[in-house]
Amino acid sequence: MEILEGRISVLAALRARSRRFEVILLKHGMHREAEEVAEITAIAEMLQIPIKLCDLRELDSMAHGLSHGGVLARVSPVARWTVGEIAHKLQSASHAPLLVLLEGVDDARNLGFVIRTAEAMGVDALLVKKHLWDLDPTEIARPASGAYERLPLVQVQEISELKEIKKLGVRFYGCLAKAKRTMHDIKLAGPSLIAIGGEKRGLSGAMREVCDRLITIPTLGGASSLSLSHASAIVIAEAARQRRSPAQAISTEDAVEESQE
Amino acid sequence: MEILEGRISVLAALRARSRRFEVILLKHGMHREAEEVAEITAIAEMLQIPIKLCDLRELDSMAHGLSHGGVLARVSPVARWTVGEIAHKLQSASHAPLLVLLEGVDDARNLGFVIRTAEAMGVDALLVKKHLWDLDPTEIARPASGAYERLPLVQVQEISELKEIKKLGVRFYGCLAKAKRTMHDIKLAGPSLIAIGGEKRGLSGAMREVCDRLITIPTLGGASSLSLSHASAIVIAEAARQRRSPAQAISTEDAVEESQE
Repeated sequence: MEILEGRISVLAALRARSRRFEVILLKHGMHREAEEVAEITAIAEMLQIPIKLCDLRELDSMAHGLSHGGVLARVSPVARWTVGEIAHKLQSASHAPLLVLLEGVDDARNLGFVIRTAEAMGVDALLVKKHLWDLDPTEIARPASGAYERLPLVQVQEISELKEIKKLGVRFYGCLAKAKRTMHDIKLAGPSLIAIGGEKRGLSGAMREVCDRLITIPTLGGASSLSLSHASAIVIAEAARQRRSPAQAISTEDAVEESQE
Repeated sequence: MEILEGRISVLAALRARSRRFEVILLKHGMHREAEEVAEITAIAEMLQIPIKLCDLRELDSMAHGLSHGGVLARVSPVARWTVGEIAHKLQSASHAPLLVLLEGVDDARNLGFVIRTAEAMGVDALLVKKHLWDLDPTEIARPASGAYERLPLVQVQEISELKEIKKLGVRFYGCLAKAKRTMHDIKLAGPSLIAIGGEKRGLSGAMREVCDRLITIPTLGGASSLSLSHASAIVIAEAARQRRSPAQAISTEDAVEESQE
């Protein structure tokens, strides 16, 4: 069982039906009809989830942080998708899929922020290498601010599995600090998977090999750099921009070259 | 005096000459000529900054986190710019200035990440309301990964001071979740100031009043949202993109409308 912390995470999980709820824990003195918890208690009643009132001290001892605001829940883990499952789902999608793959994440918080941004910008699923799912799920869910309950999260065991995604006609773009092409030179409006490496090691050789193109985020260079979650936000937002107005996205010359490959 | 933590921050401050150094503290057993600290010790010698070797326990007790890797320094604070000073500097700039103003930041870490992204994307200066500078400078500097030493940081006392920036022909764009225009519909390649509010309260009425336009980052809407530092990264990157290829940035119609205002 896992602990969900804070009103936003608990409500998002209830709405998304992404978890089995064992119990919802509210701070003593918090009125069940109070605006902040009214929707939580209403859904809990409908789904027959028990609600327990606790001392603040008890809640604090169960929580990782102090920002839960008197609302916790004990729940089953979020189900993770396999590569096969997400490929099957995307087969019948009416839009060009946009996938993001993270090869390395240094902490749970950063993974949570990537999930939040990806969901807000319309990414279809976030793929993460298997060992990264050892990170503490509560620490991932909190900064994701509800998106952890809604965005399909895919556990990748082996890079070879990704060929099921390739079969759908998805092009793979790997982000690399020193790539010659920028993300603006490439058409990200088509079916795309954007692969992002860890801050320290970058993309693995095996991952680069399955990429159709390597791209970079243009920065000033020199000592300056971007953090993993902020670099991810910028490249995801660029893909989202191109999808809103594909005609503007790349110059004609590049578009021709891309289509000739 | 402040504490700088980690090799990257100490080296960035030495290179930028942004601080007066009282002492540099290295972990006992760390060899002065070791690759990781060779440049630090070389600059320290040149500038006659004392180096002291300490036990790891002593370093840990002075540091906020455990990620200093055996390198600390006791230094003067980074000097902050006034609005008048930055306006004066930008008067002679050969490019269209890009400024970012943060009205509210909930924690030091997020401010640090905004500084890091802003510097990497070529922002000229980050303006922050005065009271926000009460945040712990060590906690701001660490996630900024050296950019805290390089990016001009401006302390804004009153919104009325900003007229000195306006006089330079800089247009003010306020980010607001429900604004009608998106950041893609607006020409951010000209002299621009992008104002971003706090996650909880958004932009103040006073700030909105001095804005020429309100803009939004297009997201899926609904429950999804972006964190302050990730929203900042996305809008800063859009301004940087438009500056790289102004012709592509906005459709002709919008450009005409903008220029007629």
